[in-house]
Amino acid sequence: MIEDLRKGRFTLPAETGIDNEVKRIIEKWGADAIRNSDGTILSKELMDMAVKVYTTYLTVRNDQQWAYSHRDQLQMQYLMSKHNTAANEVLEIDLLDGYFNRQFEIDKDHDIKRYWEVIDRTSGELLDVNHWEFDCNTQKVVINNAKKWHRYTVSFLAYQVWDTTQMYNHLTNNWTTAPEMPYDAIHEETREHIFSYLDNWLKENPSVDVVRFTTFFYHFTIAYNDKAKEKFVDWFGYSASVSPKAMDEFEKVKGYRLRAEAFVDEGYYNSPFRVPSKEFLDWIDFVQGFVAENAKKCVDLCHSYGKEAMMFLGDNWIGTEPYGDYFGNIGLDSVVGSVGSGATLRLISDIPHVKYTEGRFLPYFFPDTFYEGGNPTKEAVENWVQARRAILRKPVERMGYGGYLSLALKFPEFVEKIEEITNEFREIHYKMEGTKAYTAKFKVAVLNAWGKLRSWQTNMVAHALWYKKIYSYVGVIECLSGMPVDVVFMSFEDIKKKGIPEDIGVIINAGDAGTAWSGDKYWVDDEVTGKLREWVHNGGGFIGIGEPTAYQHQGKYFQLSDILGVDREMGYTLSYTRHDKAQEETHFILQDQKSEIDFGEGMKYVYRVSDSTQILSMDNGDINLAVNEFGKGRAVYISGLPYTPENVRILLRALYWAAAKEEEMFTWYTSNSNTECAAYLQTGNVAIINNSDKVQETEVYRDKNSAVKLSLNPYEIKWICMEL
Amino acid sequence: MIEDLRKGRFTLPAETGIDNEVKRIIEKWGADAIRNSDGTILSKELMDMAVKVYTTYLTVRNDQQWAYSHRDQLQMQYLMSKHNTAANEVLEIDLLDGYFNRQFEIDKDHDIKRYWEVIDRTSGELLDVNHWEFDCNTQKVVINNAKKWHRYTVSFLAYQVWDTTQMYNHLTNNWTTAPEMPYDAIHEETREHIFSYLDNWLKENPSVDVVRFTTFFYHFTIAYNDKAKEKFVDWFGYSASVSPKAMDEFEKVKGYRLRAEAFVDEGYYNSPFRVPSKEFLDWIDFVQGFVAENAKKCVDLCHSYGKEAMMFLGDNWIGTEPYGDYFGNIGLDSVVGSVGSGATLRLISDIPHVKYTEGRFLPYFFPDTFYEGGNPTKEAVENWVQARRAILRKPVERMGYGGYLSLALKFPEFVEKIEEITNEFREIHYKMEGTKAYTAKFKVAVLNAWGKLRSWQTNMVAHALWYKKIYSYVGVIECLSGMPVDVVFMSFEDIKKKGIPEDIGVIINAGDAGTAWSGDKYWVDDEVTGKLREWVHNGGGFIGIGEPTAYQHQGKYFQLSDILGVDREMGYTLSYTRHDKAQEETHFILQDQKSEIDFGEGMKYVYRVSDSTQILSMDNGDINLAVNEFGKGRAVYISGLPYTPENVRILLRALYWAAAKEEEMFTWYTSNSNTECAAYLQTGNVAIINNSDKVQETEVYRDKNSAVKLSLNPYEIKWICMEL
Ligand SMILES: [Mg+2]
Ligand SMILES: [Mg+2]
Ligand SMILES: [Mg+2]
Repeated sequence: MIEDLRKGRFTLPAETGIDNEVKRIIEKWGADAIRNSDGTILSKELMDMAVKVYTTYLTVRNDQQWAYSHRDQLQMQYLMSKHNTAANEVLEIDLLDGYFNRQFEIDKDHDIKRYWEVIDRTSGELLDVNHWEFDCNTQKVVINNAKKWHRYTVSFLAYQVWDTTQMYNHLTNNWTTAPEMPYDAIHEETREHIFSYLDNWLKENPSVDVVRFTTFFYHFTIAYNDKAKEKFVDWFGYSASVSPKAMDEFEKVKGYRLRAEAFVDEGYYNSPFRVPSKEFLDWIDFVQGFVAENAKKCVDLCHSYGKEAMMFLGDNWIGTEPYGDYFGNIGLDSVVGSVGSGATLRLISDIPHVKYTEGRFLPYFFPDTFYEGGNPTKEAVENWVQARRAILRKPVERMGYGGYLSLALKFPEFVEKIEEITNEFREIHYKMEGTKAYTAKFKVAVLNAWGKLRSWQTNMVAHALWYKKIYSYVGVIECLSGMPVDVVFMSFEDIKKKGIPEDIGVIINAGDAGTAWSGDKYWVDDEVTGKLREWVHNGGGFIGIGEPTAYQHQGKYFQLSDILGVDREMGYTLSYTRHDKAQEETHFILQDQKSEIDFGEGMKYVYRVSDSTQILSMDNGDINLAVNEFGKGRAVYISGLPYTPENVRILLRALYWAAAKEEEMFTWYTSNSNTECAAYLQTGNVAIINNSDKVQETEVYRDKNSAVKLSLNPYEIKWICMEL
Repeated sequence: MIEDLRKGRFTLPAETGIDNEVKRIIEKWGADAIRNSDGTILSKELMDMAVKVYTTYLTVRNDQQWAYSHRDQLQMQYLMSKHNTAANEVLEIDLLDGYFNRQFEIDKDHDIKRYWEVIDRTSGELLDVNHWEFDCNTQKVVINNAKKWHRYTVSFLAYQVWDTTQMYNHLTNNWTTAPEMPYDAIHEETREHIFSYLDNWLKENPSVDVVRFTTFFYHFTIAYNDKAKEKFVDWFGYSASVSPKAMDEFEKVKGYRLRAEAFVDEGYYNSPFRVPSKEFLDWIDFVQGFVAENAKKCVDLCHSYGKEAMMFLGDNWIGTEPYGDYFGNIGLDSVVGSVGSGATLRLISDIPHVKYTEGRFLPYFFPDTFYEGGNPTKEAVENWVQARRAILRKPVERMGYGGYLSLALKFPEFVEKIEEITNEFREIHYKMEGTKAYTAKFKVAVLNAWGKLRSWQTNMVAHALWYKKIYSYVGVIECLSGMPVDVVFMSFEDIKKKGIPEDIGVIINAGDAGTAWSGDKYWVDDEVTGKLREWVHNGGGFIGIGEPTAYQHQGKYFQLSDILGVDREMGYTLSYTRHDKAQEETHFILQDQKSEIDFGEGMKYVYRVSDSTQILSMDNGDINLAVNEFGKGRAVYISGLPYTPENVRILLRALYWAAAKEEEMFTWYTSNSNTECAAYLQTGNVAIINNSDKVQETEVYRDKNSAVKLSLNPYEIKWICMEL
């Protein structure tokens, strides 16, 4: 198929009342689909144009009549009260203290002694149910024999009486419509209603081509505080997927009963930074099974009306788990998600079992960017360029934007730039022809407690928001997202059950001590450390970033300090004299480095533990970059790796060095670290990209002995033919 | 007694061959004592001058003939091999790998299966003695059924065949005399020899007035590495006090047997940063008993010859523990120690049970400072000024310097400056008349796992060396050392056994998580947290610095986050939205602050946990300074507090605020934070000091309503009469 380079692969957000403008932009940007989002009604004329029409479908809150007439079938959430310190033997705990009372209503319909827990957080003990009572009038739990100066919490169930996304829109945009409430498909009656309502809707909306589910049954976790502001947002959170009925079902399926604490988790609510408990993993499995089974019914209904079923990766996406074991069963045609970076692009584009994926690029056409004097073009270009390198590795099939088109139209330069971007996007597909760019002969595994389930989601909070605590780790997957290497995500349990696959050349462990990303207690599991030691000893490569393999135990903090050649000073070894010095000779890993290395937040107090360790970079006495050998294997320690073009190069070189395949790196390699290349061996096309806002000169290597020189304009992509 | 302001309280280091110069300096600096150190022999003329003569006495290595003829009675040390990774079932461990073979000789005289331990550091298990053998020829332990990829260590005893101080001097100054070996007083024969040798020496040295013991029986821990460089130095370390005989004695006295691991401690060798184990505390107690009993015999011998007994606080000081329960029994006349700061000054001057204390000030008259172009005067002034504020609180009775006088004489400006300093020192004593300066009506307790035993030694490595890891905590005691408050050092066990004394107004907990200074597991001891919560709730003040009360448990990292109002982000609560902002209004604590606050290394990721918390200072989203109220009590959190004059003021204000006695602060208070005052109510004299190198104007407050203005030259001390 020869692609039309001026049209296709692009979805436009629709807007009512400006049909002519919409039509003009459809032509200009080459849109072959338009989308009406929440609240937008398309004109019949647009609906009937020769483009596909996507329509957002809100599975669990479309019918608010149902919600209001079935309040006992609303969705719930496990909440934990504040830690309350007992100054007396009688302690009263105000359950909703600190929560937004328009979001939650305490569940009094079920046996609270069965579903609630009062916990002594000083001792960690669960209180006997006879030692506390709930006072319906005050909404307080009263403990009568509290231990003085211990701290207590109550875990309780609450109905969600305001849908989180709608609540967000209300509070952010001052909407005044009635609160919508999400109903829970766990109840057979509601479930059947969801299907019949959808069936009816499909019948009544013949011009819809693609049903864009936003999404299925359970929203990610959001709780607001008593000032109507965000209190807790976990894009990965399962707290809103629970109910007494679901817990009872779980017990039947899994053979054991879950405690409230399995959800509440000391108040951490199973943050993905926690090493997941067996209980939580079982719950995720259970919810996935339920969601997949019933989402499939929705999808089948769409298909029965000749429509496609697309899933939005967000909002009520909980339980769909695109990288989980049940996702394929749903039978979706496509997934669309928001692209904030290369890693989030790959999070979408790597999703298996769908016909195509679509990326919603930034910026949204919202007033926070499109205001007089604003520069949406800059944001669009930066977003595009950061995603582009990932697209060259594994593309989304389609792209689009969201928001109010009328706002974008006020910025003619922006309108021109998007035309360029869409053309560039189509050209990439044209040159790739569905093939894959050259990658290293070894695979890279990112090792943590989550593995495949959290592919391209490691160290992330709330879908790629910037946090000081994480950017030096998120940089690792951001670098990888556009690198010429195949990346797999591996869990400690994978290693225990299946060992390390043959095709893995380098394993990366990146994160803070105690988190699921570093691994916490897995580092005192001798099956994990044993298999890794053996593998590295036999020639494997290991890269540790931040606090890799960290767990204070038996005289070491980094448990694989023998491999890494470094450990971290936690105060116990200050009496050991340090003779650490960075070596003066350059090293393969740093041979493209022109400026000071950016280690992001870095990691203080890392020191050498072996004479064989070579220190490549130090700062104020602390090691930022070191390499070591262990048997036939090699290890690299890096204190932090935020995403920058130069750090992509450091990681690329670290990977090839750790794999002991330095020479092979020069196959389809560019000398200038602001540039990268992607070589499509089957099509003969090679893309060279400039990731910087300056003109760059670079050499493009076919192999170590043959290269051509090129000059690239700021952010340019250049295609050359493989015969150099 | 009216003091002679030109003479006395000063000890000069002697030097042979420049008698006339020595005599001139004795006059100029007002010396009333001279000291001959290791290797210096004083001329008879000097010995007979009307000044006291101190002579260094090396108790356990004076008689090297004894050492060489009683090699089985040399001192020992428990050493741990490196962690060795088993790549095969047979694992050979080279015991002295990484150690200096001229310092240690493996002990083969005792039953190794009784005293050595082979430990699987992966599992933490002790190996059955039948599963390993020692090969005398290779000096290796061979494990025959090692678990592959586990790591193993051997803990073993080694003779110290080179005295650590002498070895240091040899290697540093290229000495070539024969190595001296320390013998162990635990052996009755050696012990009796020590006494008789001393007796004889006392007889043969009639012109010695003061026997300066350097010191008694056991040196602090030092190990050198295989490159003859320092490997491990713990000024507080007891590793060199052990032997099979001592362990057997211990068993008799304490009723249980110690494992090698009690000394080796995973390779941390009971660093003071470790929460001390019961076993280690028992060992310290046991060694103290032994040292005190036998040091007393040495002291009694001195007294029987009409001589004074002075102890050097250093070198072989282990087991003397000036703040321990046995020190008084020794009957010493005095202690002399090195003054590197205000805290080390107080470490000496607060020592009980002696007639007087003496500080050896910096710089040493050594070529590293006294070289052409060097500036020893600057170092002397800075050392003096930093110590002076502590002297005003609790003085050493005497001062002195060490090193080669001839070097100092080459710097006439230095000679003049020392004259000024000695006069200033004598004047302070003259004005104090042995009384104590005004202090706050409440006491301040520094709370950690060591308590009184480590008074003025908290968070210290190797006697006040600078480390990036500690200076932000050592600053706390450095600030306190010269502040108008009475300081006590309190342990968690003190709180458990005795509660919190009535006179304590504020408790300070300062240190990194997991260390003895912060408290580690004591923060999940509900007796500790309960008593503290109750005490603060009833009006106590609590100041936390760095990672106070830190222990990850039941949803909190700072266990007293309810008191502190802040906690630290360890990755588990990133999903909680932060609304933290520093308040705009000023606060009592910051009312003297003129420039940006210096939090030293600070502490990243500290956030507010309570609406009642007031944030006084933030940096990059992290809280550096916050205050909170808890019941009737108050708490202050500070991320780090290196010593600076401005930080002294912040701490002073934090103390008074936490104690809820803000008004009382203005009693003998200076408005300019580069200045401090010490008011001697009984003598009517008030000292005002300028701690800076610039002229300072200040108001001196008698109370909030009466003040006088003063101008002080750089580093000046001014005395005024109490009637303002
Ligand atoms: Mg159509
Ligand atoms: Mg949305
Ligand atoms: Mg000495």
